[in-house]
Amino acid sequence: MLIVQKFGGTSVGDLERIQNVANRVSATKKDGNDVVVVVSAMSGETNKLVGYAQHFSKNPAQAEMDMLLSAGERVTASLLSIALQEMGHEATAMTGRKAGIVTDKHHTKARIEEINPQAMHEALGGGKIVVVAGFQGVNENGDVTTLGRGGSDLSAVAIAGALKADLCEIYTDVSGIFTTDPRIEPKAKKLDKISYEEMLELASLGAKVLQNRSVEMAKKLNVNLVTRTSFSDEEGTLITKEENIMEAPLVSGIALDRNQARISLMGVKDRPGIASDFFNRLADEEVNVDMIIQNKSHDDTTNIDFTVPVGDLQDAKKIVDSFVQDGEIKADSYNEDICKVSVVGVGMRSHTGVAAKAFSIMADNNININMIATSEIKISMVIDEKYAELAVRSLHDAYELDK
Amino acid sequence: MLIVQKFGGTSVGDLERIQNVANRVSATKKDGNDVVVVVSAMSGETNKLVGYAQHFSKNPAQAEMDMLLSAGERVTASLLSIALQEMGHEATAMTGRKAGIVTDKHHTKARIEEINPQAMHEALGGGKIVVVAGFQGVNENGDVTTLGRGGSDLSAVAIAGALKADLCEIYTDVSGIFTTDPRIEPKAKKLDKISYEEMLELASLGAKVLQNRSVEMAKKLNVNLVTRTSFSDEEGTLITKEENIMEAPLVSGIALDRNQARISLMGVKDRPGIASDFFNRLADEEVNVDMIIQNKSHDDTTNIDFTVPVGDLQDAKKIVDSFVQDGEIKADSYNEDICKVSVVGVGMRSHTGVAAKAFSIMADNNININMIATSEIKISMVIDEKYAELAVRSLHDAYELDK
Repeated sequence: MLIVQKFGGTSVGDLERIQNVANRVSATKKDGNDVVVVVSAMSGETNKLVGYAQHFSKNPAQAEMDMLLSAGERVTASLLSIALQEMGHEATAMTGRKAGIVTDKHHTKARIEEINPQAMHEALGGGKIVVVAGFQGVNENGDVTTLGRGGSDLSAVAIAGALKADLCEIYTDVSGIFTTDPRIEPKAKKLDKISYEEMLELASLGAKVLQNRSVEMAKKLNVNLVTRTSFSDEEGTLITKEENIMEAPLVSGIALDRNQARISLMGVKDRPGIASDFFNRLADEEVNVDMIIQNKSHDDTTNIDFTVPVGDLQDAKKIVDSFVQDGEIKADSYNEDICKVSVVGVGMRSHTGVAAKAFSIMADNNININMIATSEIKISMVIDEKYAELAVRSLHDAYELDK
Repeated sequence: MLIVQKFGGTSVGDLERIQNVANRVSATKKDGNDVVVVVSAMSGETNKLVGYAQHFSKNPAQAEMDMLLSAGERVTASLLSIALQEMGHEATAMTGRKAGIVTDKHHTKARIEEINPQAMHEALGGGKIVVVAGFQGVNENGDVTTLGRGGSDLSAVAIAGALKADLCEIYTDVSGIFTTDPRIEPKAKKLDKISYEEMLELASLGAKVLQNRSVEMAKKLNVNLVTRTSFSDEEGTLITKEENIMEAPLVSGIALDRNQARISLMGVKDRPGIASDFFNRLADEEVNVDMIIQNKSHDDTTNIDFTVPVGDLQDAKKIVDSFVQDGEIKADSYNEDICKVSVVGVGMRSHTGVAAKAFSIMADNNININMIATSEIKISMVIDEKYAELAVRSLHDAYELDK
């Protein structure tokens, strides 16, 4: 098999851990696999460099930041390659450039445009283990770019796609994807497999293991993604096409997102286009609107409720205020003490009654549902934050996720 | 003027010092000059990275070492560019690759083959300060290479040559080139100017400020080199063409090299080619032979005396031993308690009596001269090490270098 293995900052956090990574890569190679390794900077390194830059400027130039920050991954990649060579393997360290990772020009958050895997193919063809500095690429001007948060995961997935690897393993400090957060429900179980679509829902709903960008790219490139821990040999969770999961459970997981605030607008003038004006303004300010509910009121005005991440609340308030001052909105109110509980599962597509069951569980526990949003494979409910744990545990139990 | 300024590891040793460097570069720019800055890694960084590598392997692969070590200079260059931008300058950080530094394939000690200064020209044309990561280039395969000891100086000189800069300033922790080592002779004076040839002699004789590689390149590319301190505004020493020095003094400096050992071979068989065989063997083992004296003996054999750096003595001994065993040499002896004192000055070319004066000074002080070697601009004398300071001070005084 051709396997891409990606190790994050904590997995390569010191020299001993880098040696552990080398041991794992070595074992994979000795099992008869071809291996490409993608590494992050040693944990703490990137923050140290960011701190250095901020010593000089609150708003350092992005091109300079990319040249600065890309140094960390080069160090790890070189060291890991040296460790593998010392163990008797043929290995070669590659920068993002050498690995052929071409990005657009957006410094500090570049998008991968293409991968020219020729150098990797040659090295693999020669029996070498390829060690790639993650998080970085090169734009058409030949300047180093970095890929933003979760960038090394993206490097790994994109490389796996370009090489048509059999597997892309993402090593972190958690052992896989769980039916829900084990800190809330100790009976939560690790999933063997989950579909891209479910993973995307779970990730956007608060499961922190993988960034959505990586899952989306894996889905697009049809990469079999495994998330697992670098601290034990425990098997992880395979994220793959729905077709590859023989018997999908009705519900795969319960997600909780505490990072939501609710904004209620009362007496919104009933003129055509007002909602569109309002939400376009929010979009212009890059406020992330999640759920929206609109109700006609008795007096020919409208009430609109919507949720935004807590971090975007201040920006949203400013825009609401301007509409209130213009007399387009009569009153507004805000609530940060809410959370969003979601039930996710591809099985919902073919089975009815999943949503009804969720609502009745909430009713049984006297939890009031403020807002509801559904997709083909997800039911999200906004509830008061104080009920968060109760809701998660009750739903986890009701769908028998501990079985 | 177009000025290249190079700052070594101690000059950029911490964030405060990087800010000091930024202040100096800023002042140079504000004086109306175009500026290219070449920086080393923060002092200690390179050693830290070497230590990391040696944790994994006593003999790490050189390509990996280059990828590893080149990270340090990138960090400094990015930070300095950010600091300059914060001060209101247009600045841009460049890797060796971006600056167009192309080298041969010798990882960890590559030679610069050419410089493609297009990116630097464009940036300078746009009024920008260019900040280049020193010590690194890229070979024809597109892999990062490093230039070995003194590599950042070489980067600076090569860039100054390629850009036809008016001046290449090398900033270190010493304020310039002195008539002799001030730790030996406190009356030593800093030289305003010195020719490339004299500097080459002084450097190879123990003056540690500049590596010969840099001076040789400056000479070849006709770069006006200034060595000065980054810790004060004191003027440094200009190293330039002899023609640019209006009134060259008879003698410019007295150099002392304690790092020499003498090897004496007695009864060397008088067959044709034996000396050539012997010294070729030494060359094959990369033993650096400095001075050689050969005397015919009474019995038709030859005596050969020569000096090598102390570090090469063991390798040299092995070769001597094999010639002794083969019966080609009768006896051998070694002396590490010697030193080499040299009088350097381009004025010697046109004035006689300089050597005679040196010999009489030694005689006046009862210092026995073991070996003598002369060039157009240098007289070197091997003496017992215990007379080192006495010889240096007496010569310094005799040629009135404190005046």
